[in-house]
Amino acid sequence: MTVTDDNDRHAEKMRKIQAARARMMQSKTVERGLVIVHTGTGKGKTTAALGMVCRMIGHGMKVSIIQFIKGAMETGEQAVFDAFPDLVEMRPLGEGFTWDTQDRERDIAKVREAWEAAKARILDPEWKMVVCDELNIALRYDYLPVEEVLAVLAARPADTHVVITGRNAKPELIEAADLVTEMGLVKHPFRSGVKAQAGVEF
Amino acid sequence: MTVTDDNDRHAEKMRKIQAARARMMQSKTVERGLVIVHTGTGKGKTTAALGMVCRMIGHGMKVSIIQFIKGAMETGEQAVFDAFPDLVEMRPLGEGFTWDTQDRERDIAKVREAWEAAKARILDPEWKMVVCDELNIALRYDYLPVEEVLAVLAARPADTHVVITGRNAKPELIEAADLVTEMGLVKHPFRSGVKAQAGVEF
Repeated sequence: MTVTDDNDRHAEKMRKIQAARARMMQSKTVERGLVIVHTGTGKGKTTAALGMVCRMIGHGMKVSIIQFIKGAMETGEQAVFDAFPDLVEMRPLGEGFTWDTQDRERDIAKVREAWEAAKARILDPEWKMVVCDELNIALRYDYLPVEEVLAVLAARPADTHVVITGRNAKPELIEAADLVTEMGLVKHPFRSGVKAQAGVEF
Repeated sequence: MTVTDDNDRHAEKMRKIQAARARMMQSKTVERGLVIVHTGTGKGKTTAALGMVCRMIGHGMKVSIIQFIKGAMETGEQAVFDAFPDLVEMRPLGEGFTWDTQDRERDIAKVREAWEAAKARILDPEWKMVVCDELNIALRYDYLPVEEVLAVLAARPADTHVVITGRNAKPELIEAADLVTEMGLVKHPFRSGVKAQAGVEF
């Protein structure tokens, strides 16, 4: 077999993939707001939400980010958000991880406060994306009934995206979502003594 | 059992988690550049890299983004990058998916061009993060020898982060990486006829 044969076979294979892909894309015609869930024990759940926020900003669409549990999304990315004050707001309503507060009733009150803010924005057509960061943790601890969240998602404007992050997403939420990604941990530098670093973790 | 008992047990449990976490974090003292791999068939590989780029920008650290295969990272996020011209550059050296080109030799030449640009930045201490977007695809098709990539990673400055995305990461790369996340597809809206949308996919 010559190099030319090899290249020809490659071109033929790529033509087939291209044609199959074009057929698939033609069948995708619906444009609507999505419920997007990032779950799993790996990294990247909040970070990927942040990447989508970037894209929304670039398209001139308004985004609200509500922090449910940790106050982590505020150091690095804040400077970027500050450059687009008309397009993005971040409300860090949570006050650190639950294992730092040790007060269940206070945690529930804080989650309720964050949820009321999220709900107002999800139902307001002005906001095109609402990120409920770490909402899954609040749902998992039953700080907020999942039924209440599902009812608000169902009532949202047709073109509003809602992104919900956090490990242990409830099955009811996965069922209601359009796009669910499970971030799996394959390897983590903490195992070799590396600490959380600027740019990567915060 | 009373509500008070329930709250006390919760507080005790959270105290234990908090203490265990504090012990773990104390052992994490190393700060150094990481090799980060985002792989898997799910969404969020490039998007999570983009989120890290945001954080780096916020910390005032320079980032270079090299596109190996698709020219996708350029619509939404470009506006954000344009706001920080001194901190971020994006070089879309790839020219669309391989199934659109059907020319293996041209693809290899394009990958080589992108890799030479990436290599120069990885070895230059001025750049604190280099994102090699979709490099895994190029490695998978053997457009570039993985040994060459590993040698450059090993030779990089101590505080440089390199982020490599794309499905089917080579085992040799996973072995060499510090942080590996597998983005798994749980549910995708394409299945119900929804097309790629601004803010979410691009």
